[in-house]
Formats: sequence, C-alpha cells, structure tokens
Amino acid sequence: MNTLVTGGAGFIGSHVADHLIEMGHDVVVIDDLSGGNVDNIPRSAKFIQGDICDVRLVDKLFAEQKFEVVFHLAAYAAEGLSHFIRRYNYTNNLVGSVTLLNAAINNGVRRFVFTSSIAVYGANQLPMTEDLVPNPEDPYGIAKLAVEQDLRSAFEMFGLEYVIFRPHNVYGERQNIGDSYRNVVGIFMNRLLQGLSLPIFGDGSQTRAFSYIGDVAPIIARGGYEPGARNEVFNVGADQPVSVRELAEEVCRVFGCEGRLEYLPARHEVLHAFSSHDKVRKVFGDTASVPLREGITRMAAWVRQVGARQSSRFEAIEVLRNLPPSWAAYHNPR
Amino acid sequence: MNTLVTGGAGFIGSHVADHLIEMGHDVVVIDDLSGGNVDNIPRSAKFIQGDICDVRLVDKLFAEQKFEVVFHLAAYAAEGLSHFIRRYNYTNNLVGSVTLLNAAINNGVRRFVFTSSIAVYGANQLPMTEDLVPNPEDPYGIAKLAVEQDLRSAFEMFGLEYVIFRPHNVYGERQNIGDSYRNVVGIFMNRLLQGLSLPIFGDGSQTRAFSYIGDVAPIIARGGYEPGARNEVFNVGADQPVSVRELAEEVCRVFGCEGRLEYLPARHEVLHAFSSHDKVRKVFGDTASVPLREGITRMAAWVRQVGARQSSRFEAIEVLRNLPPSWAAYHNPR
Repeated sequence: MNTLVTGGAGFIGSHVADHLIEMGHDVVVIDDLSGGNVDNIPRSAKFIQGDICDVRLVDKLFAEQKFEVVFHLAAYAAEGLSHFIRRYNYTNNLVGSVTLLNAAINNGVRRFVFTSSIAVYGANQLPMTEDLVPNPEDPYGIAKLAVEQDLRSAFEMFGLEYVIFRPHNVYGERQNIGDSYRNVVGIFMNRLLQGLSLPIFGDGSQTRAFSYIGDVAPIIARGGYEPGARNEVFNVGADQPVSVRELAEEVCRVFGCEGRLEYLPARHEVLHAFSSHDKVRKVFGDTASVPLREGITRMAAWVRQVGARQSSRFEAIEVLRNLPPSWAAYHNPR
Repeated sequence: MNTLVTGGAGFIGSHVADHLIEMGHDVVVIDDLSGGNVDNIPRSAKFIQGDICDVRLVDKLFAEQKFEVVFHLAAYAAEGLSHFIRRYNYTNNLVGSVTLLNAAINNGVRRFVFTSSIAVYGANQLPMTEDLVPNPEDPYGIAKLAVEQDLRSAFEMFGLEYVIFRPHNVYGERQNIGDSYRNVVGIFMNRLLQGLSLPIFGDGSQTRAFSYIGDVAPIIARGGYEPGARNEVFNVGADQPVSVRELAEEVCRVFGCEGRLEYLPARHEVLHAFSSHDKVRKVFGDTASVPLREGITRMAAWVRQVGARQSSRFEAIEVLRNLPPSWAAYHNPR
C-alpha cells in the first residue's frame, strides 16, 4: 500500500517511516529539511524535498501517487516559542495541514493519521484522558487542536477517516539536538557534549512523562491500519512523570559527568502534564515501555556517535517582547 | 483615541466605524475590498486599502498610528463554503488575525476587540450561553475559536486585553447582497429584485435568530471601552429564532411580492442556533431590539435604493467534492 509520511526526515516521522516499511508498505517521504535530516530517511523510501504549504507540489504529489494512508508528522513543534511566532506557527502547523487534507479529500485517501500533541490539553485534570475538554494555552496547542477539529469536520463532510495521536515529550535517537527552542533531552545532551551548563526554566519542578521513541512510533504506524482506531484520539507515550530537574540529573548520570544546572527565570508554561494510556492499550494492546534510564542510555550512545551540533537559531521571531532572555540572546532587536 | 477597524468597508465593520466616530474616536479603516465597498466607509475615517495578511503593511500601519484599540472585523464569513476553502479560510480568518495580533502586541495596543461567531458553538445546548464548551463543526467556526483561544493566550503572555463578540446572522443596510455563498437575507432580497426564486437548503426548518445590524454594531463599538467587558466573551444579536422558511415568507411580505421558494438538497449544517443574551445585557445594559419585520423593512428600503447586484463567484474553490450543486453550478471542475 502506498503511504505518505510528512516530516519523514524528522525525528518521529523517520521512525514511523521505518516501521511502515517493516510492515511492507511503500513509503513516500515529504520533508523540507527545516528540522530533519536526509540521513534519517529510510533508504527504500522515495524522498520529495519540499514544503507541505506548497499547494502545487502537494497537489501534484497526491495526484501522482494515489496514497491510501497519510501520516502527517511535519510540524515545527516548538511549543514555548510558539507565543513569539504566531504567524509561522499557524501557517506551518495548520495551513500546511489543511493543504494536505484538501489533497487527501480530492484524491480519495482512505485514512489520515495526524500527530497532535499533549499541548491540546493545556493545564488540565491529571492524568489527562482523551475525553477531557481541551484547553490549549499556547499557539502550538491551539493549532494542533484546530487540526483535530478540522479532521472531524472533514470526516463528517467527506468521509475521510482520521486517527489522532497525542504524544508528549518524545525523545530518542535521531532527535534534533541542535534546536535551542525545543527538545529538552536533546538540548541537555548537546550541551553536555560541549561542556556547557544545562538550562532549566524556573526551579525544574515542572513534570513531563518523557517518552522513548520506540514506544511511540510503532503505534503511530499501526494507526493507519488498525480498524479500532478509526476516528479515534489516543494519548501515546510514557506513564511516569519526571521533573525536569530529575531528568537533568538522569542525563548527567548516564553521561557520567557533572553537569552544571543553570536555573533561568520561569517561563509561562503548564506545570504538570502526563497522560493516561488506558485507551491506546485497549486498542493497540500492551505495548513495549522502555524505562527512562534505558531510553536515555540508548539516545546517549547515538548522541555520542553523531557528536554535538551547532545550535540553530530561529531567524523569523515575530514578537521579541517577553521572549525568555536565554532565547533573546540569539536575536538582535529588529 | 486612535482606533483601527479592520473590514471597515464591510457590513458590520462600517457600522462599527460609524459608531466609533459618533463616540468621538479617530478611525482608521483597513479593508481589501474583497467583500466591502468604499461607499460604506465613513467619510471622516482614514482608509487604507490592503490585506490584513500583508505583514509589512500591517506592521507599518501599527508603527505609524499607535492605535489604542483594534476592532477586528475583517473576515470571509462564509460558514457553509468554508468546508471547500479550508486553506483560504484559515489563512484569511486565522493567520490574518494573528498578523494583527502580533502588531498589536509589538505596538502596545490596549484592547483587541474581536468579532467571532455563533459558529464556535456548533450544534450545542440551546439557547447557547457563553460558558458552553465550544464545538465548532466547520472550518469557519474552528478558525474563529482558534482566534478566541489565541487572544486568551496573548493576554496571559503579553497582557493585551481582549473582548470577544459572538454575533449571529446579522442583516441590515450595507450587507453584501451579491455573495451567493452567505447572507441569506441579502441573497433573498437580491434575487427577489431580479424575479428569481429563493433558494432554501433542505426543508427550511433550520432556525436562526436573525439580528438587525443596529442592535449589534453599537455594542461592538462600546466593547472597546466598557471596563466590564475586559477579557470577556459576549453573544450579541436577537433572541428570537425564526426558521429560514419563515424568513423567506417575511422577506416576500415586505417586498409585497410572491417569491417562489426553491427547495435544494439539505446541506450539512447546524439545525438550530440561537443564543442567550443575558450576559451582554448585564454589562452593556438593555439595548435596542429591532423586531424582524421592522429590520427587514429598513433593509428592503436600502436594497431597493441600491438595486440588485450581480452575484459574485468565489474563484478559488479548493475542494469541489460534495459542493452543493447550486454552488457548483458556478464552477467548472478543475
């Protein structure tokens, strides 16, 4: 079966593409390489370099390839930065998504698998369950929720099936460790390699259930075909919340070095976020669950192998006001 | 005080601009004239022709004018068509809105007054109250809700005050009667003038509380300054739901002619929608309420004066599948 993986040169996307190929599917990857890397793309996948917002490219691709299932993972998933890049966020994460959705409707795609985010819940009841009323607090979460709602509307109007996953704080091999605005595990490892401090917003007591990629990607891949997943929303990831401070200590332990924790002014963010995974287990069965130390160890081995990366800087910040000073340091005022 | 009215050449926007001028404010209007008309703009307003998605133009305008309050009414409010123009809808109604919002944040605007829509409720409990959980069913309502959420997020992060209005089915003088995809009252009148049938989707039993512009625009204008409205959401419009069939009969009665009702296949839409206005009365006081016949009579007088208009056609439909046949008739398949 012919499938499309958007963001397939990226972290989660490339792992999903791997699993799809293992499952025997043909895979086309579209990625603009803004955050991904060609080395991540499975060799047997066909690769199209391009932007999902490029209507002509997307329409042509869908018309040529007649995809059965679309796995949409292309996104700029920098939740904290999204306050300062509203236009970019909604263009990339929402308008890009509906460009794909239009093409899926117009070309008879059977199922659209969308990777949303725990960010749609905002500060909410814990553990977060799929039936909670979403209450996103930042433009990133708002865009993800809008795509979820749009998929429901597209099913009602056009019969296009959807499956929505809400993963959270996924880490592991192939994560972009050179993005200073996201991926705390990657940031910690990249800085440790360079002998730099580990930056923590606030006192580090905020908790997240850091989730190993190997526990997340296979489920997303299966989401394209699992009959019980049709038109459903699933949390996916680890159960156990860990504070950011504990995470930093764990990463230092695995690297066998003394990392210096650098406490920065707190930023406006949800304090505690972790999800229930009862629903995903019910439909996908008991899935592997790699403990944090094991996952960190595997990722650390990969990071040591690829080496440190120069931290990239996001060029097109739209609002500099209230930008955390550690981020603002990269930018000259306009 | 210097104020900006986006969509100020349009229907609701031009009336809001009138009221602001009456209240003694300076008014700048920005409008791309895609749906509006220069004749609608108050003479004493400064007019900038342009698109709210044009970042350079918007940034320049805000930097020059130092607005105290922004009234954002520019939108393509074609709810039913939004299923078929997802990209256009989210670009125009959401990305356009955050382009203004960024500029408001960057230039110290005090309050942002946003005209949302009853569409955010979807099919919901009746009458709709502001505390209901929104459940939009179409891209238009989804975009409006996303802007509402984004405004809340912008207040939390940047302290920009907001006021959100959710009007519904507003009609009256200066409505665009030449748009075949929206404004049922205008469509009916325009077709009656041309001796054409009145198209009704389904059996016409769907109800809406058609609201006279004179009951809506002054409240939106006051929303910029009313202390009790700060960071609040208000329904605004008429209380009394009327079926589309009754509306058609009422319009024929006022025009003194026998309109032929033409029943078209039902489309996917919310069956009943009307709101409670207890909250808006509590903050803005008992406001005028023009009965349907009176409002229709005033609008009819204006429509007779301006005459029939050629129905415009939306050129950039993105999905033709399941487009109502009466709309598809305007389009050749791609």
